[in-house]
Amino acid sequence: MSDNQPSDPSPPEPAGEDEVGLKPELIASVAEALAAGEVAVVEKLIQSLHYADTADLLEGLGPGDRHAFVEIIRDRFDPEVLPELDETVRDEVAEQLGTEVLAGAIARLDSDDALYLIEGLEEGKRRQVLQKIPAALRKQLEEGLAFPERSAGRLMQRDFVAVPTFWTVGDTIDYMRESADLPEDFYDLFVVDAKHRPIGTVALNRLLRTKRPLKIGEIIEADMKTVPVTMDQEDVAFLFKQHDLVSAPVVDHFGRLVGTVTVDDVVDVIEEEAEEDLMRLGGVSESDIHTPAMDTARGRIRWLLVTLINTVIASTVILQFTVAIDRIVALAVLMPIVAAMGGNAGMQVVTVTVRALATRALTPANAARVVVKELSVGALNGVVFAAIIGSGAGFWFDDAKLGGVLAASMVFNMVWAGFAGIAIPLAIDRFDLDPAVSAGPFLTTTTDVLGFFSFLGLATWLLL
Amino acid sequence: MSDNQPSDPSPPEPAGEDEVGLKPELIASVAEALAAGEVAVVEKLIQSLHYADTADLLEGLGPGDRHAFVEIIRDRFDPEVLPELDETVRDEVAEQLGTEVLAGAIARLDSDDALYLIEGLEEGKRRQVLQKIPAALRKQLEEGLAFPERSAGRLMQRDFVAVPTFWTVGDTIDYMRESADLPEDFYDLFVVDAKHRPIGTVALNRLLRTKRPLKIGEIIEADMKTVPVTMDQEDVAFLFKQHDLVSAPVVDHFGRLVGTVTVDDVVDVIEEEAEEDLMRLGGVSESDIHTPAMDTARGRIRWLLVTLINTVIASTVILQFTVAIDRIVALAVLMPIVAAMGGNAGMQVVTVTVRALATRALTPANAARVVVKELSVGALNGVVFAAIIGSGAGFWFDDAKLGGVLAASMVFNMVWAGFAGIAIPLAIDRFDLDPAVSAGPFLTTTTDVLGFFSFLGLATWLLL
Repeated sequence: MSDNQPSDPSPPEPAGEDEVGLKPELIASVAEALAAGEVAVVEKLIQSLHYADTADLLEGLGPGDRHAFVEIIRDRFDPEVLPELDETVRDEVAEQLGTEVLAGAIARLDSDDALYLIEGLEEGKRRQVLQKIPAALRKQLEEGLAFPERSAGRLMQRDFVAVPTFWTVGDTIDYMRESADLPEDFYDLFVVDAKHRPIGTVALNRLLRTKRPLKIGEIIEADMKTVPVTMDQEDVAFLFKQHDLVSAPVVDHFGRLVGTVTVDDVVDVIEEEAEEDLMRLGGVSESDIHTPAMDTARGRIRWLLVTLINTVIASTVILQFTVAIDRIVALAVLMPIVAAMGGNAGMQVVTVTVRALATRALTPANAARVVVKELSVGALNGVVFAAIIGSGAGFWFDDAKLGGVLAASMVFNMVWAGFAGIAIPLAIDRFDLDPAVSAGPFLTTTTDVLGFFSFLGLATWLLL
Repeated sequence: MSDNQPSDPSPPEPAGEDEVGLKPELIASVAEALAAGEVAVVEKLIQSLHYADTADLLEGLGPGDRHAFVEIIRDRFDPEVLPELDETVRDEVAEQLGTEVLAGAIARLDSDDALYLIEGLEEGKRRQVLQKIPAALRKQLEEGLAFPERSAGRLMQRDFVAVPTFWTVGDTIDYMRESADLPEDFYDLFVVDAKHRPIGTVALNRLLRTKRPLKIGEIIEADMKTVPVTMDQEDVAFLFKQHDLVSAPVVDHFGRLVGTVTVDDVVDVIEEEAEEDLMRLGGVSESDIHTPAMDTARGRIRWLLVTLINTVIASTVILQFTVAIDRIVALAVLMPIVAAMGGNAGMQVVTVTVRALATRALTPANAARVVVKELSVGALNGVVFAAIIGSGAGFWFDDAKLGGVLAASMVFNMVWAGFAGIAIPLAIDRFDLDPAVSAGPFLTTTTDVLGFFSFLGLATWLLL
């Protein structure tokens, strides 16, 4: 190009923040066009949409519009859209597409995405779809389904590039130029021994900077992390984070290379696991906002039932002190404060503990230290808030002794919350259960019961 | 190799689940050796430790042991360890290493890691360290610091490989073989025009499978996502997830290529953002479990203060009904149930809503639909639990009318919780504030107040 080319006064505007992902206006426009039955307009609107954005569009449309939309794109349905959909919407779309089209779509996907779709189907539907899939792929999918749920075997892709140590860089590049059935995307070569066991990796950029005559064995990265097929996906994610990996070889029970996990799958796992803890701490089980009201309500009942049992237990504690409440009605006014402060202080500790367990920052090696710390935090904040609310209540009800009782029970309950907030999740974790699910309800039951008991008990003892 | 080689009866055991990451026993052994002053034993134990594991070891040790350990490894301190450390521990270790060593370590890191460390230092310390860093790198770091926090500019690496369209595959490979200052890891080449603006990418595996004479322009992937330097890291993460990227070009205001974001940085962002929502919903601000008790206590006070104000407001509601409580003490026993059920049902909805907003599943296009759904869920579960607790309380206190009042206020509060649980976070989000921080306290204040008010008010009206 010539050097004196005039400098362009208006450079192409880089994608602004608003342009990340699907624009809400596009969903509205598509919905409008669908309502008006303008198929051509819809087709124009979605012309150059990325499959992930098409998935978001499907999720953004109401059920009626979604149905109409799927009919329009049915004939050139991009299979890549399916794995991107939330479960509820995916089931709906899969149902509408029918077994035949669904099987065709699955057959065109990468092996890991295909398995992900198949494993999400109901038993009966899964059998029907599998029957329509070509035998070789079906066998692969059935093998995949034999691995435990949430294992590396479910996550991995079957296609990878494996080379022996004695090949030269030139051999390898020539092989890659000739070979027709390489995976679509890959970032590392896996170097295998005569028994097809991985002995190291070669990053593609390393291969590219090396001269042709060098042997693979000379540029091999032997400090490689292999992933057993049965490894839990959470452990896989930890490995990738810890070692900044982009891909890793997956090996079977004999140490033979059978597949590869790539970082894009791991990104999904990390999202999923973090979301799970968040949802579980919030007492929610449903997978997405598209779940119908009836199923959502049913999914949330368990946690509400636990809450109900918790508060009924707390109520029976209050019931023991009706004489005191009858005599000093201010106790009924103040008692929720002690329970709520204990509950919230405890939930802070539970949140930190659940997260620390998930990220493996909390281990047997430092547990004792962290427990002592949380006890101190509880005591510190207990004293601060006891002083505030004790003196406040003393003035409010013109009763210093009442204030003192409130303050004392507050300190007690907050120290307890500090201890229980870490001890309960640790104990649950020790039994290999998930602390995110049950630590919260356990904790608040104890802080409610001890809060009411200490406050009303002390009041009965000292004020009546 | 010969074909009749005997098959190995004991294949190398692949890394089992327990072997992911640092073993707790290793931390204990190191602590023991440190206590006994056995430097040689410590050195042997940590011989082949990955830097991420060394970081976990540092975090797992108590403050005293950590200090002793840093002294042992001071002379061959691996700079890669620093970015892996939690903030509190990192500050401690940085302090101990001293400005000189710290500056040396930062100078040896990739530009993105170096910036990450520098931005985490306090103002004064930052200046001192910057002064000891070679001028060229210092300038780069200062430029990086000029980008907004949590922007792509802070995240990006300055080293990348850019090639023009008219180069052939052969030219490119030869260039890479000759060039000494290529980045350590990279996955894509960026293709630039004469003004150094990216016009497409070439994945390394694509380059490797293409014959030498072909032009870069012929294998370019033009459907490329560019990241503006000012883009928020959350948007960058969204882009990577949506398009399964491993790297993306970062462009300045003029659209010129200035750096690259890689997926390992994005993985950290995804973790960080998911953790942030979890922590904020739990009312926690501290970054890690290593924060000292005093700072932790201080960090948690804000949320506890909000809880206190919330419950005091609720208490003043109760105070209006002391006459009713005085006459029917069962009201004091039952009132926490209405408040707690409303609060927990509402927090379920808040949790789902906060997550749906974070993952952009909830948009203006479907908000109305989701609100209607949550109202239905609230009504459904409200009726279910009203029936349980209404009849239960009716029997318990042998008072059907009391049971009816409890049931009615329960339905009311749970429908309200369904509505407020989604409306409050949506409203907060509309004002561009973070719903994870403040939706919870807002919600529970309303469910407490309305719970007590509806139950005690109805009781006053119907039972007295």
